[in-house]
Amino acid sequence: MIARRAAPYIAQMPDDDVRGRVAARIRAIPDFPVEGVLFRDITPLLADAGAFGSALDWLADCAAGADAIMGIESRGFIFGAAVADRLGLPFLPARKGGKLPWGTIRRPYALEYGEASLEIHADALAAGQRAAIVDDLLATGGTAEAAARLVHDAGGTVASFSFAIELPELGGRARLEPFGPVNALLAY
Amino acid sequence: MIARRAAPYIAQMPDDDVRGRVAARIRAIPDFPVEGVLFRDITPLLADAGAFGSALDWLADCAAGADAIMGIESRGFIFGAAVADRLGLPFLPARKGGKLPWGTIRRPYALEYGEASLEIHADALAAGQRAAIVDDLLATGGTAEAAARLVHDAGGTVASFSFAIELPELGGRARLEPFGPVNALLAY
Repeated sequence: MIARRAAPYIAQMPDDDVRGRVAARIRAIPDFPVEGVLFRDITPLLADAGAFGSALDWLADCAAGADAIMGIESRGFIFGAAVADRLGLPFLPARKGGKLPWGTIRRPYALEYGEASLEIHADALAAGQRAAIVDDLLATGGTAEAAARLVHDAGGTVASFSFAIELPELGGRARLEPFGPVNALLAY
Repeated sequence: MIARRAAPYIAQMPDDDVRGRVAARIRAIPDFPVEGVLFRDITPLLADAGAFGSALDWLADCAAGADAIMGIESRGFIFGAAVADRLGLPFLPARKGGKLPWGTIRRPYALEYGEASLEIHADALAAGQRAAIVDDLLATGGTAEAAARLVHDAGGTVASFSFAIELPELGGRARLEPFGPVNALLAY
């Protein structure tokens, strides 16, 4: 098991050691998925259990105190489920439209070309529950905003948003802050 | 945190308590995704941290001793990432074709109508490494077999397959056993 800190530190200010360990395992890949985009590949981070554990330490500190962890399909499942397990909290998957079998609530979000949607089960949250939303990357904030609206639609509130990586130039943070505090471990 | 057992028990034989706790949180949904199919919905399991933790205890016992945990997109990410975190092992995502940014190895698998593919990064495993493959459900075994072939393509071997649920009538187990031992917590 990864060593846990005895007491949480201030989640919004990860120390440089944690940042450095995680950043060393993010691989920059030019021109993916399209020319001109510099893609931040998290698979080397996932392959390094120590660095992945450090990122999870920090994400779990950010999410502590929530009633449930919402992970956004599909890379958000990787971080969100491990955070939920660490905190002993319910895990609530926000899925791409059409995949959940029970009665759902749906919110659309914009893609570069066209639109997609995110869904949760209608019974996923009890009224008043506070969900911490976890994903790997904050870019334009479209999917995370849809996730936040689903939390509200279900009668809950957003305890926090937590991301491994933020791309501040894309302005996602400003879209999310009306719903709850936004935490990101690394910014590019 | 979920309490951990002091010593692992025999992974292939989950006790009735664990089975009962997990089975109580699997919701059967008729006619999803198409008429005549009885869908096993794991979202109530994920929403019950105690029951989810029990399933993860068992899956982690099954996977212990491997060099890496491979989770199959996307529900396999939920179980696989938490298992990798618990064991302090690398997590290796097997993704739907076209999503990984680096050089990949790809294997096709059959869908009811047509074909899809599963990919891993070409550098995901070192030669001789033993990967434990984790997913929520074993049905026909098509995706898990593709995952196992990817492990071999990358120069590794399959330490084990572990599933929360098996549908034995669909015969998936027989396709997988040539690659490694197959564990399932529940069978329907």
